[in-house]
Amino acid sequence: MPKQELPVHTSECCTPLIAEPIAEDEAAEMARVFKALGDPIRLRLLSLIGAHESGRQVGDGVCVCELTGAFAVTAPTISHHLKVLREAGLIDSQRRGTWVYYWIIPATLKRLTSVLALPETLVADAR
Amino acid sequence: MPKQELPVHTSECCTPLIAEPIAEDEAAEMARVFKALGDPIRLRLLSLIGAHESGRQVGDGVCVCELTGAFAVTAPTISHHLKVLREAGLIDSQRRGTWVYYWIIPATLKRLTSVLALPETLVADAR
Repeated sequence: MPKQELPVHTSECCTPLIAEPIAEDEAAEMARVFKALGDPIRLRLLSLIGAHESGRQVGDGVCVCELTGAFAVTAPTISHHLKVLREAGLIDSQRRGTWVYYWIIPATLKRLTSVLALPETLVADAR
Repeated sequence: MPKQELPVHTSECCTPLIAEPIAEDEAAEMARVFKALGDPIRLRLLSLIGAHESGRQVGDGVCVCELTGAFAVTAPTISHHLKVLREAGLIDSQRRGTWVYYWIIPATLKRLTSVLALPETLVADAR
């Protein structure tokens, strides 16, 4: 698969939860993504993938073999955490030969920052 | 206590996790906050508080009595979820008479958006 820049959907997405009460269905959906981030190993995995040049390229990706060494847990545990991140839409993956390669999905991160954004008035009044 | 605008620390905080691998101690700290957001009821509570004018004022706050009606769970369950949000540094509270009043801590939300921020290159290349 040819390398390809990751798309980021910058269109209007997600009213900040500080702007108006979040809808029940959106809360359920976003909570699932935040829950995926609510683990130190998963946060570090996402960071290792996203901070790597290959981890920002759809169809390229970081080899799982480069990720496991950073952790004091077993490979199956790492695979489990990667699965949770993938199911939350934070990363995607592709098997090539022996290994699986992972890359981030920036649109999901963008959506999280939109939901958590502070209204201008709060930022402007900051001191 | 007189009303007071909430401080937002806009100083450089938190390298985006997509910029360089997040440190273990920071991952542990941030994971705790994301875990607090990883529940639909807690997300909705945070949103109800932050979307309310009084919920943005230190020492003012939204009465817990205004929050419980929005949920199909018991008051003790709501109190438990509010405690989790408070322990994660997302909200603060004050008891006044019979009721407890809650307001958001914008600095914590600011920190989360900093950590999740996409590098300019990824945003710029978006399509």
